[in-house]
Amino acid sequence: MPPPDDHLIEHLDARQDILHGNFLHARRDTVRLPSGRHATREYVVHPGAVMIVPLLDTPAGAPWQVIMERQFRYPVGQVITEFPAGKRDPGEDLWLCAQRELREETGYRAAEWAHAGVLHPLVAYSTEIIDVWFARGLRAGERALDEGEFLDVISVGLDDVLLWCRDGRITDGKTLAAALWLQNLASGAWSLEWQPAAAGPAAG
Amino acid sequence: MPPPDDHLIEHLDARQDILHGNFLHARRDTVRLPSGRHATREYVVHPGAVMIVPLLDTPAGAPWQVIMERQFRYPVGQVITEFPAGKRDPGEDLWLCAQRELREETGYRAAEWAHAGVLHPLVAYSTEIIDVWFARGLRAGERALDEGEFLDVISVGLDDVLLWCRDGRITDGKTLAAALWLQNLASGAWSLEWQPAAAGPAAG
Repeated sequence: MPPPDDHLIEHLDARQDILHGNFLHARRDTVRLPSGRHATREYVVHPGAVMIVPLLDTPAGAPWQVIMERQFRYPVGQVITEFPAGKRDPGEDLWLCAQRELREETGYRAAEWAHAGVLHPLVAYSTEIIDVWFARGLRAGERALDEGEFLDVISVGLDDVLLWCRDGRITDGKTLAAALWLQNLASGAWSLEWQPAAAGPAAG
Repeated sequence: MPPPDDHLIEHLDARQDILHGNFLHARRDTVRLPSGRHATREYVVHPGAVMIVPLLDTPAGAPWQVIMERQFRYPVGQVITEFPAGKRDPGEDLWLCAQRELREETGYRAAEWAHAGVLHPLVAYSTEIIDVWFARGLRAGERALDEGEFLDVISVGLDDVLLWCRDGRITDGKTLAAALWLQNLASGAWSLEWQPAAAGPAAG
């Protein structure tokens, strides 16, 4: 049993909405610190997101190939190489969301899916949590980008993914985290439980 | 030469500050899309940050050990296991910032430092960029936490870091990205250029 975390935990005292933008929503909470004093915490409220690591079919023993996107990310002013990802619609099942985002952004549908885990991209000031999925058995189709969404779809070998993580051509946090999974799956050190896309809520 | 990215890049037309909080600052920019149409982009403006991966001295051949923190992260409502990190002061040199944050949060000073790269934790709605440093030759000392900052300092073996990344005990994006570096450094696949802390701007 780990020790209790009472000496770390902060408790909500009062809440205030400080931003209701078109896209961004933020709050300022007054919290009671472990010391009993008070402090304010400001953060972005986010509905959650998914990231998909799509594996192309390759012959047994051949290097793994993945689908990635190149997208201009306005806040950082750069074209970013990243795995497909997108925001969850209100109430949307996360697996369905992953299938929708993969289809809309890349055109691909996947026969099999595996849930790898979750990641918090920015614990200091966002509630966002990203659900991480791997997809295989890909069939290409038509994209359906949102209006105002522009991105290139590329296929990249595992060696290049790792090289780009090392040399700074990949700087996107979620994509670097996915590369850790990718490397350990490819080496056989880690494994996933694959499920057909037709099973479970994704059939809906 | 990669192809030009004109079909992806968005251009600023007009800028509006939409939040000046105690901690959070946000903007709404009107941008010209590659199609010529206009859209708005809302995002958090951040001064940048550092993350430090502190390596404990271990006998040659023994498993690597790192210093990590357990800190309650209010926006996600959980105690998060993560590498030391902190926000850059205005105009602060990034290497000095890394040394300061390591000292303040953990009490450790490091004899040698290596710059691994940068990561963007949240390209969709934050300008934040995290400068990633490794530190070794650690000597323990006194912490100097900010008021309102509560965190535990722990030492963790590399095998546990990777196990926790896999099983969901580590979900912090920057820490998962650092684990990719850590694993590839420990295996010898990747390398770093180490510099003594006394050299360069960090001497100031």
